[in-house]
Amino acid sequence: MSSSMLIQTHQHPFAIALDRTALLVIDLQNDFCHPDGFCSSVMGADIAPLRNIIPRVQAVIDWARQHGVLVIYTRESHKPDLSDAAPSKKLRYENAGYPLGAPGKLGRFLIQGERGCALIDELQPLETEVQLDKPAHSAFVSTALEAVLRQHNITHLLFTGVTTECCVLGSYRHASDLGFYGLLLEDCCAALSLQEHQAAIDVLLGENGAIGWVTSSDRVLAL
Amino acid sequence: MSSSMLIQTHQHPFAIALDRTALLVIDLQNDFCHPDGFCSSVMGADIAPLRNIIPRVQAVIDWARQHGVLVIYTRESHKPDLSDAAPSKKLRYENAGYPLGAPGKLGRFLIQGERGCALIDELQPLETEVQLDKPAHSAFVSTALEAVLRQHNITHLLFTGVTTECCVLGSYRHASDLGFYGLLLEDCCAALSLQEHQAAIDVLLGENGAIGWVTSSDRVLAL
Repeated sequence: MSSSMLIQTHQHPFAIALDRTALLVIDLQNDFCHPDGFCSSVMGADIAPLRNIIPRVQAVIDWARQHGVLVIYTRESHKPDLSDAAPSKKLRYENAGYPLGAPGKLGRFLIQGERGCALIDELQPLETEVQLDKPAHSAFVSTALEAVLRQHNITHLLFTGVTTECCVLGSYRHASDLGFYGLLLEDCCAALSLQEHQAAIDVLLGENGAIGWVTSSDRVLAL
Repeated sequence: MSSSMLIQTHQHPFAIALDRTALLVIDLQNDFCHPDGFCSSVMGADIAPLRNIIPRVQAVIDWARQHGVLVIYTRESHKPDLSDAAPSKKLRYENAGYPLGAPGKLGRFLIQGERGCALIDELQPLETEVQLDKPAHSAFVSTALEAVLRQHNITHLLFTGVTTECCVLGSYRHASDLGFYGLLLEDCCAALSLQEHQAAIDVLLGENGAIGWVTSSDRVLAL
């Protein structure tokens, strides 16, 4: 085990050992981030906030590869027959105006195999890196993520991706509860509105550090 | 299965079947809510926001009992030797200024068997109701909660308790990911600051209903 280094955060320093660290890149998929993806082309959402983080996420991925840090990419996705979607999740997404499996320019929304569901072209995972499909917001629910991390002796996680308050926060909180040390890189996460993004950051900064650690990517890239 | 009723929420109606519903009362413990508890007497926190919700939680518990809705009380707690506390959680709580097991007027902070760890006197669980000790923020981690709910055929959960952004939100998000329909009663939840409370509400209201449902207790009491 390598010696640990300290990363400054908004509150308390975060001690990190790179050989026990993984970088999570959450749900950077065409349906969320591509101009022809579902959020932009069907819902008419302004995806600029999501696209803005891409260069910084790419930089952190490059840094991770240089430092031997495992990179793990997740996709929010479902089987074509939606047999892996909880009825409660289907209802929430219908309420929100984007039913799971609804048609879009890049195929059915969040359905495995559709181009909309794929990772954005700006990400090109290596064969040695991990890609995971996940049917829930937390990347630990109904996936092999925890097992993968344990197999690699990972104890520390860096969080990037979209959307901050939905799948990033849900995954972060679950990781903490499973005993992982989590550090969220706030400038590598985004939501469709700044308010939603900031709400998630405020949750993590709550109770003076009892919930989590938040920093910006420059603190990591400087390691 | 009884017919379902609709509860108005901030966004979309929440359909509820009372015989498949449980009321979660999260972490209303002396260490958080009693004037001699750890948060008030050792940390010097203003616990008025936490105490303010107690009468409304009591009213919802009374309503639940009248309607045959199962009430489940959780306690954030650990064994005296802290063998059930993740090192990462211990560090976060040390950083925050309230180490797990630290001494206080009502015993060691969040340690099972200490008076500080007990439910507040204003709650008097019936023998038929469920009490659960939980070592993480999510009430579903390292507990029998999911099994208990499945055994009772529970599909819908009402969320009350403290603190909103920490254990309430963590439990809510996990419940959603496990397929439960969750409704948070915002006036029956509280944090030490309004900002922390509101951040959690804003997270749940994010993405126009894709994350969760939020309402106030009067909507439930009117059923």
